[in-house]
Amino acid sequence: MIAEFTIVPVGTGESLSSYVAEVYRILDASGLPCERHAMGTNIEGEWDEVMAAINACRTRLLEMTHRVSIVIRIDDRKGAAGRLRRKVPSAEAKMRT
Amino acid sequence: MIAEFTIVPVGTGESLSSYVAEVYRILDASGLPCERHAMGTNIEGEWDEVMAAINACRTRLLEMTHRVSIVIRIDDRKGAAGRLRRKVPSAEAKMRT
Amino acid sequence: MIAEFTIVPVGTGESLSSYVAEVYRILDASGLPCERHAMGTNIEGEWDEVMAAINACRTRLLEMTHRVSIVIRIDDRKGAAGRLRRKVPSAEAKMRT
Amino acid sequence: MIAEFTIVPVGTGESLSSYVAEVYRILDASGLPCERHAMGTNIEGEWDEVMAAINACRTRLLEMTHRVSIVIRIDDRKGAAGRLRRKVPSAEAKMRT
Repeated sequence: MIAEFTIVPVGTGESLSSYVAEVYRILDASGLPCERHAMGTNIEGEWDEVMAAINACRTRLLEMTHRVSIVIRIDDRKGAAGRLRRKVPSAEAKMRT
Repeated sequence: MIAEFTIVPVGTGESLSSYVAEVYRILDASGLPCERHAMGTNIEGEWDEVMAAINACRTRLLEMTHRVSIVIRIDDRKGAAGRLRRKVPSAEAKMRT
Repeated sequence: MIAEFTIVPVGTGESLSSYVAEVYRILDASGLPCERHAMGTNIEGEWDEVMAAINACRTRLLEMTHRVSIVIRIDDRKGAAGRLRRKVPSAEAKMRT
Repeated sequence: MIAEFTIVPVGTGESLSSYVAEVYRILDASGLPCERHAMGTNIEGEWDEVMAAINACRTRLLEMTHRVSIVIRIDDRKGAAGRLRRKVPSAEAKMRT
């Protein structure tokens, strides 16, 4: 499955990039394939490993702050893997038809 | 923490209420406090129990269909519990001030 | 269409209920059918009127704060109206079958 | 503001890439800066122009199908522009500190 994940501390300063840096470090350490973009990070893996990585980010941010807001969006397609790099090119190929 | 959870099968018919009914049954069986609304279900509990309930719904729907789209939004506030029923009245109280 | 809408100020205090109260006031003034719940507000109406109401909330919160995070989820079904009150009972009816 | 946008037809086939291709075409035609990724598209612009582009996608998909599910997530920071390309490098710079 592919999950898009965003975590925002509530009640801290207006700049969030140091929290995002922490999330990048933890996701890197997970070893799962990731795609960073301006509105979150996409991760690919099995339910248990993806949720463990997200929970590690959540636990870390709750050490740095008192309240967090999380959004997780999942696209789970049976028997499909390696889709993180394939979804955009696959739709782009159809643009030309 | 409070999580809002929505799961939509991709590539089935236009009516989704039988899938939603299945989700309601599984969440009821979890015993966690729930609030059903027109765009999803809110559940309150610890990370592990909430994620286990959501994973049970996901596993069930992947038996009924081949692809699912999930959105989970979490509001996690340290040391706060029993907020599922308190958040709306608390904001409504401030409307009058 | 039905839209679920949440707006969170970034970089203010940990309590958000006064912002939510402001959102409730603006949505009430819009006259659109609303359903308040612990993780957001559901509104029903045409695209233009729903987006005007959400934009009024956004404009107001950007007067009170410098950065906001918004999530809008939409379920848009052609030719269907009055679904805000019907979706939960319709799925609950299927639970018994 | 930056918006992340995803639209999924409900009740069509399991493959969605032809719908995504249509979305890419419409967003390209809008002329707004876009970032395509595996779970949606990020667009940067003013509220009115971003919402007009999203509404054009919605209108087109409702010609191709009867029901659509949309998720829009917005990060709106007063006086900030050109952030679509800057957010990831800015957090990555903090990873090294």
